[in-house]
Amino acid sequence: MSTQASISPQDRADLPDLADIHLAEARIRGRVRVTPILNDAALDEALGCRLYCKCENLQRTGAFKFRGACNAIARLRDDGVEGDVATHSSGNHGAALALAARLDGRRAHVVMPENSSPLKIRAVRNYGGEVHFCAPTNEARAARLAELVEAGMLPVHPYDNADIIAGQGTAALELAQAVPSLERVVTPVGGGGLVSGTAIATRPWGIAVFGVEPEGAADTVESLRRGNIVDSFEARTIADGLRAIVGQRNFRIIREQVKAVLTVSDEDIGAAMALAWETLRLLIEPSSATVLAAVRKHPELFAGRKVGAILSGGNIHPSDWLELVSSSRKP
Amino acid sequence: MSTQASISPQDRADLPDLADIHLAEARIRGRVRVTPILNDAALDEALGCRLYCKCENLQRTGAFKFRGACNAIARLRDDGVEGDVATHSSGNHGAALALAARLDGRRAHVVMPENSSPLKIRAVRNYGGEVHFCAPTNEARAARLAELVEAGMLPVHPYDNADIIAGQGTAALELAQAVPSLERVVTPVGGGGLVSGTAIATRPWGIAVFGVEPEGAADTVESLRRGNIVDSFEARTIADGLRAIVGQRNFRIIREQVKAVLTVSDEDIGAAMALAWETLRLLIEPSSATVLAAVRKHPELFAGRKVGAILSGGNIHPSDWLELVSSSRKP
Repeated sequence: MSTQASISPQDRADLPDLADIHLAEARIRGRVRVTPILNDAALDEALGCRLYCKCENLQRTGAFKFRGACNAIARLRDDGVEGDVATHSSGNHGAALALAARLDGRRAHVVMPENSSPLKIRAVRNYGGEVHFCAPTNEARAARLAELVEAGMLPVHPYDNADIIAGQGTAALELAQAVPSLERVVTPVGGGGLVSGTAIATRPWGIAVFGVEPEGAADTVESLRRGNIVDSFEARTIADGLRAIVGQRNFRIIREQVKAVLTVSDEDIGAAMALAWETLRLLIEPSSATVLAAVRKHPELFAGRKVGAILSGGNIHPSDWLELVSSSRKP
Repeated sequence: MSTQASISPQDRADLPDLADIHLAEARIRGRVRVTPILNDAALDEALGCRLYCKCENLQRTGAFKFRGACNAIARLRDDGVEGDVATHSSGNHGAALALAARLDGRRAHVVMPENSSPLKIRAVRNYGGEVHFCAPTNEARAARLAELVEAGMLPVHPYDNADIIAGQGTAALELAQAVPSLERVVTPVGGGGLVSGTAIATRPWGIAVFGVEPEGAADTVESLRRGNIVDSFEARTIADGLRAIVGQRNFRIIREQVKAVLTVSDEDIGAAMALAWETLRLLIEPSSATVLAAVRKHPELFAGRKVGAILSGGNIHPSDWLELVSSSRKP
């Protein structure tokens, strides 16, 4: 599998456990925001359940990714490892790592596909990161990252990394601690960092965790069906944060601890973006909206339940938001 | 003064005090959201101070107005007064009163100028309120409201009302309780409900409270200069929530307890809306953005200080947001 090439020497072979998530929480405290949890009667009515939205779109850098990046950088610091870091990212992890690195006196080098969102490219640069463009394929991305690592940079994989997974799990930890008796938690699935951290973090509460993929990037669903991670696939979805292939560690955790991975169409996603704005006055990016779309689409799983939804990010320009929301409306 | 006509029999002649704000807080607890307080390093850098944003744009109904409306309705309930309520509003108070009334089994009748934002008209109706259109003048508004009151409805003034002022003050109460050592708090000024409640609520902390008006609706600044509330004025500003003339009770409190009322241009407001999105990923309406614009414009008052900013509302459609932000950019 192509992402295998970019697993860093710092990555531990073992998977993170609940203790790692609590350690991550302590390590990143004061750097990450304890994001708000919003619920809304009109949203509940539209979705037929009691929904608690963990607003990681209001996290620093506009996405949950800052949690994992902060934890990974803090681990390097704790281990006495100096030097700049490198990663590949469609955007949110890159921006998060750039800021986390800068706060620790390092620089982040971020390999990004040429077709990345201009907003996300600008964000990486604004936070002090250096962007290295590549062709929009897994192979080109891995090759460019390998060059940077050969040049001496420390790789920090965006999701197939125990410290990243533990950091991402802190969002669900905060959610489960704040909202009693949650029955289900739903998160998007790209590479699987968020959903795997969520599954580990919420285990003590007996919460059933569901992942969501866009129909056009349902590699995890297909991998679960086959029992092995798919070698490659072509992503076709408006959810630009969810186009990656699921990681090895992530896949193992998902297989063992995630209840199911659901799929939603781009049209469902656009409608859910509109719903989030109508009810919560939040502009969320398509990746985030997958969770609302899935709850709406699967009443057999969520109706009448107390459900947590992780709104993963808000990095979408209002003009792009408008375009996606209008084009999702059925004529 | 024309708004005098619409002061309800329920309005007490006396002004609210700190105890009223604490009573309001207890009365509306569980109905209003304890809204998040966000700060951001990039925002601090842009404004040259440490800013804590109280996100009333994420309040139920998308604005702080729900606090006052809930308190006013709860007071009617406590006093055993049954019946439907009536008010006039450019939008946010109307929507807030509609929802507060509905939650209490009443109906709200809202007199709105014909040129109100379609979004705000829809909101009043969505929350179960009935809209009564009038010409966009203070006289037409007062006349239409008087008709409704004659027909038996209970008037709830949008700002010149002790219960409304006490309810609005709970936002600053939460802010001052959550953020130690705040030196200043800044709020927008329309009719003056928010700024007057804020001044009363923050007094025990010795916080200096500043109000902000758009240059094109600076009736309070002019009234303070004259020592009397102006009779009439023509509002010309993109901040549609701040076009009202300051109320009698509000003016008295502002004169006694507010440090100063500052002004900002529509161009300043548009730039501040863009800044809020760039740094906090929040879409705020122009009225809210006045506070960020004022902090940016007055370093002599705010530089290096610990400042609270009440982001009053988020009820603006993304397409209108885009238009206002682009048109505020200097060519």
